[in-house]
Amino acid sequence: MGGRWAIAGIDLHVDVAGTRVSRSLEEALRAAVVDGRLAVGTRLPSSRTLAADLGISRNSVAQAYEQLTAEGWLDARVGAGTWVRERAAPPTGRVPAPAATRPDLDLRAGVPDASAFPRQAWAAAARRVLARASVDALGYTDPRGVPALRQHMAAYLARARGVRASAADVFVGHGFGDLLALVCRALRARGARLVAVEEYGHELHRRIVRAHGLQTVTLAIDDDGADVSRLEEAGADAVLLTPAHQFPTGVPLSAERRVRLVRWAERADAIVVEDDYDGEFRFDRRAVGALQALAPERVLYAGTASKALAPAVGLAWAVAPPSLVPALVEARETTGGGQDAVNQLTLAEFVGGHDYDRHVRRLRHLYRSRREAVEAAVADRLPRCRVTGLPAGLHCLVELPGGVREGDVVVEAARRGLALEGLGAFAEGTVAPETSSARRPPSVVVGYGAPRPHRFGEALAALVASVDAASGRR
Amino acid sequence: MGGRWAIAGIDLHVDVAGTRVSRSLEEALRAAVVDGRLAVGTRLPSSRTLAADLGISRNSVAQAYEQLTAEGWLDARVGAGTWVRERAAPPTGRVPAPAATRPDLDLRAGVPDASAFPRQAWAAAARRVLARASVDALGYTDPRGVPALRQHMAAYLARARGVRASAADVFVGHGFGDLLALVCRALRARGARLVAVEEYGHELHRRIVRAHGLQTVTLAIDDDGADVSRLEEAGADAVLLTPAHQFPTGVPLSAERRVRLVRWAERADAIVVEDDYDGEFRFDRRAVGALQALAPERVLYAGTASKALAPAVGLAWAVAPPSLVPALVEARETTGGGQDAVNQLTLAEFVGGHDYDRHVRRLRHLYRSRREAVEAAVADRLPRCRVTGLPAGLHCLVELPGGVREGDVVVEAARRGLALEGLGAFAEGTVAPETSSARRPPSVVVGYGAPRPHRFGEALAALVASVDAASGRR
Repeated sequence: MGGRWAIAGIDLHVDVAGTRVSRSLEEALRAAVVDGRLAVGTRLPSSRTLAADLGISRNSVAQAYEQLTAEGWLDARVGAGTWVRERAAPPTGRVPAPAATRPDLDLRAGVPDASAFPRQAWAAAARRVLARASVDALGYTDPRGVPALRQHMAAYLARARGVRASAADVFVGHGFGDLLALVCRALRARGARLVAVEEYGHELHRRIVRAHGLQTVTLAIDDDGADVSRLEEAGADAVLLTPAHQFPTGVPLSAERRVRLVRWAERADAIVVEDDYDGEFRFDRRAVGALQALAPERVLYAGTASKALAPAVGLAWAVAPPSLVPALVEARETTGGGQDAVNQLTLAEFVGGHDYDRHVRRLRHLYRSRREAVEAAVADRLPRCRVTGLPAGLHCLVELPGGVREGDVVVEAARRGLALEGLGAFAEGTVAPETSSARRPPSVVVGYGAPRPHRFGEALAALVASVDAASGRR
Repeated sequence: MGGRWAIAGIDLHVDVAGTRVSRSLEEALRAAVVDGRLAVGTRLPSSRTLAADLGISRNSVAQAYEQLTAEGWLDARVGAGTWVRERAAPPTGRVPAPAATRPDLDLRAGVPDASAFPRQAWAAAARRVLARASVDALGYTDPRGVPALRQHMAAYLARARGVRASAADVFVGHGFGDLLALVCRALRARGARLVAVEEYGHELHRRIVRAHGLQTVTLAIDDDGADVSRLEEAGADAVLLTPAHQFPTGVPLSAERRVRLVRWAERADAIVVEDDYDGEFRFDRRAVGALQALAPERVLYAGTASKALAPAVGLAWAVAPPSLVPALVEARETTGGGQDAVNQLTLAEFVGGHDYDRHVRRLRHLYRSRREAVEAAVADRLPRCRVTGLPAGLHCLVELPGGVREGDVVVEAARRGLALEGLGAFAEGTVAPETSSARRPPSVVVGYGAPRPHRFGEALAALVASVDAASGRR
């Protein structure tokens, strides 16, 4: 603490206090190697550089290096420098947790095939953007996101999803969860207390809502989508919906319910959050337009690049009701989040040059053919099952034969190295008794986006075998 | 709503309901142009493509295009396609707010010279990373950040700043504000209510603390840094400090107070947040090691790439006390934020290959020479002023002659097109009366990082002229 510190070659940080300079340096270096601050393989500065930086004699540094090399902490070769030696470093106190690994075969929903990510085109767009960006564009940016991206997204969403968008109301985020958290803060600021959620959905989204001090009430899902008639009596202040393609049941919200929903929102001064997580992937060419277009003052539209490009892109967007924009800006500022400008400019380049459209079209073919492969496999080899859900997106449901339990299929799948989830894994756990919950028939959710191309057939075969095994067991 | 929708060439979204197909298409296209969903200059799909996509005759599409071209909405040239015409689109309802522009000359603190950002090296690193990354690395990642970056940052911070870091405890964020917001949520989860802040600092940081339901208490700043003796009696649960280089006064926290602070934190089971916002930029080669090394179980260390690279990189890092890690992970998950993996991998490549060290060294020279230029200008041309604050970072204080007011200098600067802030702009507004506030002498904060190289001399001249004018006024 009271010691004197110096910065050396690679910003080495050592204490050279005291009169016996060489010895102090030696001790400091040894301690840094032992406790892992100086990692194995780190190249040390030359004795001349370090001596100059520390303001001590070159001989003192050379002595310290020699001693530590003799002790086996360092390794030196003439003309090639001095390194921290391989066997020298003991493990640090705690070992980093291993990175989460993907299971061998994966049919979980919500996971896109990241091998389809256009790496080269993305790198090329990033390079162009970096070469061209103004210096100001590399500085601090608007809390809503980089203007160029917000403008391109407004135009894209208007033509691709029928969204009524002005760049001023577009917010860029890390993913839907990031945007949902901002919305929750904005809802709290306008006095909201109760948010309606769908009977099936991502548990994480419900957690985000509740972590912001909001309570949830559940809407049952039937063949017309979420039962929005519950909203009025429940006294909800907002509702979180997946109207184009309910997740994961695959049911679209009916036209009649869309109108009813919007009328309620206007009457109740409520906000509708439209999670359009895969709205670009409709295979029958009859895409349902965004709900937002019916009531831009009431509906916050949200979409993501995680499915169309890759989760690694880490970008999502919202088009907010203008009245909600100030509270969302405040929420962004007081939580400090956002996305780096280089990445945003790269996506702007991708969308503005129609690379994004082209890539979506390519993926639509990919995922459609996978969907058809699931349907064919079920028709051929699981005749007692049926595929349900709109021909859209990256997943479908496979409804199980009478008496076969989801849990048994999931266990059989796990035995075959296949990650798979039952519909029950997406059910809201706290459906109130008074809710007329129309629980769906036992099904497994088949995310055909996840496998890489060369493993897809194998994953399907494992699915068929798992259902067979679970059926035979009874 | 009940209509049928189709996706065409560039993912055009139109309603073709009804029997008079050509007329429906014509109306839908016209409406899309009028309300701006189809932007000026957008190229429409060929009639053949659109007809195939909509499942209607090519003639119907051609008729619709002809009619709209005749009306002046579209423009067509044989062999070159059909566009939305320049003069056709009326302005949309609301005009996007103009992007924030930088003032002509800028000496505000906390703004680095983004023109020094190594664009080419960064683009090259991104390209290498994209070519090499595993498919899994492009998928969803650890809420703490990408493992490779956390490992490289742990090693870098150990050698450059003496931080005791294990990759398991490193969190990647968008900036210090993002990380501070996570810390505030984690503090709330462990029952914290009161956070001590420094008498001078970023107002945004205080806003972030308060926006998370925490109260603040203020520590006076004197020549030994923050008066940490107040912490005990105030009953603080945490404290937010800039110990290496107090922002913006430039005073380092004394060794005696560092020890006292850590003892208090241990006694009180409190958390210290160390904002090491420019710890890499110490010009006298006597860098003060990170406070965190004294008590890794009590101190959360935070740093950022915004100064050393550019704000556009949008990456920051924290090394958290292990006991705080679970609550921080929970906070990250339930607020959905994070940074894109490509960007994180690029920084990992930069740090791992020592490009980061090299760039920091280069910048250290740049900022040191600017610091010296400020000192020389003050000595030569403002002999009644003096420069205060450690020779470090991207800013210093210029203490004004007796009787000259900060506000007058700022106004004179604004008249000269120079953005400048007084020390008072960073003062905590709510210093309690019982606090023995040792307010500093009137000074302006000179951020010598902000100007681009060719404007730096001009900015300095404007500073001198502004102080002269404000002095002459009295």
